[in-house]
Amino acid sequence: MSDVSLDDVVSLCKRRGFIYQGSEIYGGLAGTWDYGPLGAQLKRNIVSQWLKFFVDGWDDMYLIDTPILMNPKVWQASGHLDTFHDPLVECSNCHSRFRADQTDTKKCPTCTKVGTFGKPRQFNMMFKTTVGPVDDESSVAYLRPETAQGMFTNFKNILDSFQPDMPFGIAQVGRSFRNEISPRDFLFRTREFEIMEFEYFIHPNDWEKYFEKWRKDMHSWFKVLGLPADKITEHDLKSEDRAHYSKRTTDFYFDFPHAPDELAGLAYRTDFDLKNHQKESGRSMEYRPKDGGKPFIPHVIEPTFGLDRHVMAVLSNAYSEDEVEDEKRIFLKLPANLAPVKVAVFPLLKNKPELVKKAREVYAMLKKEIGAIEFDDNGNIGKRYRRQDEIGTPWCVTIDFDSLQDDTVTLRNRDTTDQKRVKVNRITNSLDSNL
Amino acid sequence: MSDVSLDDVVSLCKRRGFIYQGSEIYGGLAGTWDYGPLGAQLKRNIVSQWLKFFVDGWDDMYLIDTPILMNPKVWQASGHLDTFHDPLVECSNCHSRFRADQTDTKKCPTCTKVGTFGKPRQFNMMFKTTVGPVDDESSVAYLRPETAQGMFTNFKNILDSFQPDMPFGIAQVGRSFRNEISPRDFLFRTREFEIMEFEYFIHPNDWEKYFEKWRKDMHSWFKVLGLPADKITEHDLKSEDRAHYSKRTTDFYFDFPHAPDELAGLAYRTDFDLKNHQKESGRSMEYRPKDGGKPFIPHVIEPTFGLDRHVMAVLSNAYSEDEVEDEKRIFLKLPANLAPVKVAVFPLLKNKPELVKKAREVYAMLKKEIGAIEFDDNGNIGKRYRRQDEIGTPWCVTIDFDSLQDDTVTLRNRDTTDQKRVKVNRITNSLDSNL
Repeated sequence: MSDVSLDDVVSLCKRRGFIYQGSEIYGGLAGTWDYGPLGAQLKRNIVSQWLKFFVDGWDDMYLIDTPILMNPKVWQASGHLDTFHDPLVECSNCHSRFRADQTDTKKCPTCTKVGTFGKPRQFNMMFKTTVGPVDDESSVAYLRPETAQGMFTNFKNILDSFQPDMPFGIAQVGRSFRNEISPRDFLFRTREFEIMEFEYFIHPNDWEKYFEKWRKDMHSWFKVLGLPADKITEHDLKSEDRAHYSKRTTDFYFDFPHAPDELAGLAYRTDFDLKNHQKESGRSMEYRPKDGGKPFIPHVIEPTFGLDRHVMAVLSNAYSEDEVEDEKRIFLKLPANLAPVKVAVFPLLKNKPELVKKAREVYAMLKKEIGAIEFDDNGNIGKRYRRQDEIGTPWCVTIDFDSLQDDTVTLRNRDTTDQKRVKVNRITNSLDSNL
Repeated sequence: MSDVSLDDVVSLCKRRGFIYQGSEIYGGLAGTWDYGPLGAQLKRNIVSQWLKFFVDGWDDMYLIDTPILMNPKVWQASGHLDTFHDPLVECSNCHSRFRADQTDTKKCPTCTKVGTFGKPRQFNMMFKTTVGPVDDESSVAYLRPETAQGMFTNFKNILDSFQPDMPFGIAQVGRSFRNEISPRDFLFRTREFEIMEFEYFIHPNDWEKYFEKWRKDMHSWFKVLGLPADKITEHDLKSEDRAHYSKRTTDFYFDFPHAPDELAGLAYRTDFDLKNHQKESGRSMEYRPKDGGKPFIPHVIEPTFGLDRHVMAVLSNAYSEDEVEDEKRIFLKLPANLAPVKVAVFPLLKNKPELVKKAREVYAMLKKEIGAIEFDDNGNIGKRYRRQDEIGTPWCVTIDFDSLQDDTVTLRNRDTTDQKRVKVNRITNSLDSNL
């Protein structure tokens, strides 16, 4: 079990500007969260590492970007209209509704009346809207509950425009929506969330080989995020727990503060989706091997990564406390490649123009070389260190009176709080190469 | 007027994998478009240039990321529930609906009956959905029609977490939704689109100064995109054409293939939004100057950039035709910093292993140095050039038999089709520095 409390993480996120409650000034909107500047930057860093690790370095990955609103026939073909349900019970007295599988009492939690729950009924978790000026059944559309279908419906487009060799992957990063009955656990179960995902198209004979390959790659990816191997566990889903389309699914659980829970998944979806889209749309989804081999409908391995859950895993894994000079210190042990701010630059004193000038020069130099640099001259140095520790900045650079004499600065390490003096033109070399 | 035909641009986009009709295999969903791999990459490049130009280089910009679903009180405060309407007429015979201001005939375009239109009524352009298990008025929510409100509702959070000095900006890039009655003109008027936007908070006395500063910055930005100044025109909106909250609005029109039309806008929104959020939420939206000056509600300058319209402007501006060796050639004159692929590497012949091996080495080297590199050994060289020209790749590198002797390659320039021989280790130096 994780020994970090979720409350501590949520509180730091709000205090320092990582993540705020969605629509907070209006009392919130359950299941939505606002990413503040540091959270947005952390999320961008995770996405760009993911693209670097899985997409940019490969020759056979096609990253696309499709809309949230799709023709409703997509959800007919995918099975979501018929099967994307949660069982729901309603209180006959106050009409509150709850997830049947999470309501273990006969007493209504809202009005406290006993024995008011009827039989569970199926509640579709897709958000519904209407498109166009006519507001009736013919104009109904849904907010996508997954990014996968945009990749399946473009399978043929990718074949036509790029003639890829098999195997190849289509990738997508984007928002998805699920009308969860009980959103909970911070970023873990929300109604609007982001997914990073592949559909990797293969010959059916090869599925076990590629499933195994992806399983290993996913573990390597968790290492890039700095998540320790002993906090990740694999769960192979039994057939009754798997989605209707899957022949094998492995969930990757992370030790979240609330519980070990799903961070990513790997599913062998067979040819379920392409076959159904072929049937519903009347368009061929066959792949014709260039060597003249027999055309076939490819099968699919699908590695899925919950982006907000990644943010939550990285933050709660990084959350640390220790004691410095007899005071409790909170710091985020973020890997340097994910930290929103890489280096903070301080003039020792705000009211000494020569220190501020020198610090501004160092700041401009590092900003040009590294990018994500912050300048701070507010309050005493101790207070400034505390803020940078809490936002996970790996290094702080302080310009003091000695700096004016010998062109050196104090370079402080976030994790050890060790300080050393280095020449200004050696600062960048003294940092991790992994920025 | 633009001399490029929209059909030519749309056709190239589909053929080469930039942009496809949304949900195409199901006959589409009006007003939605799928970004294929090259379009998604072009869009990513525009966003990253925008962030570099407007956010990363500044000290006073806070990039946030808020949800599409917000508490409906937000839209009460912003005025969207009351005023975000289009006038709509309905045919009493066939019940088709049309935008009143775009229907200049008394005859219904659908059923062709005459005199069937009643009085125009107001149609709210926000997409409506319901959140949570109860499907009634209390659970109604809307898909955001603009990204701006997420920045206003986080104004106080940014003040609390970051204590910025005035002026400062909040930035956001994200999807927005408008239930357009008549989506049209490719990416220009769609129902789901992306916006890049700032709210720049100022003291009311300074509004003219900052309005002017932003106006200039926006022209500099269009230069980064390679859009020629003579295709951009400014339109100052008269008071009756401005949004309800604005005291001054300048639209920036680009010569699109369909017509000169809005690419970006600059609005002085006064304190309309913060004041209304203060009133509706009961939370103070005041800024307290650090020098002890009088607290005030900041005013706002809002520069807005339509991302999909940027993609469309860049593509139609780049679309070019000429003649090469008596044959018509289509090519995209994309600025190198925006091109999805920077360099394509070809072995002259596919069936000569020594050429393929050498070409793979050059490809690996360039991929490491530059990133967005493509390898192509399909078909004859002429066909490969044609494809790279059409996707806007600035340079092609061909490895031939001489390459094996003297370690040189042919470097071909997309716009001039000039070729020169350069040493392998000098390829990168021979390209534009602006990648």
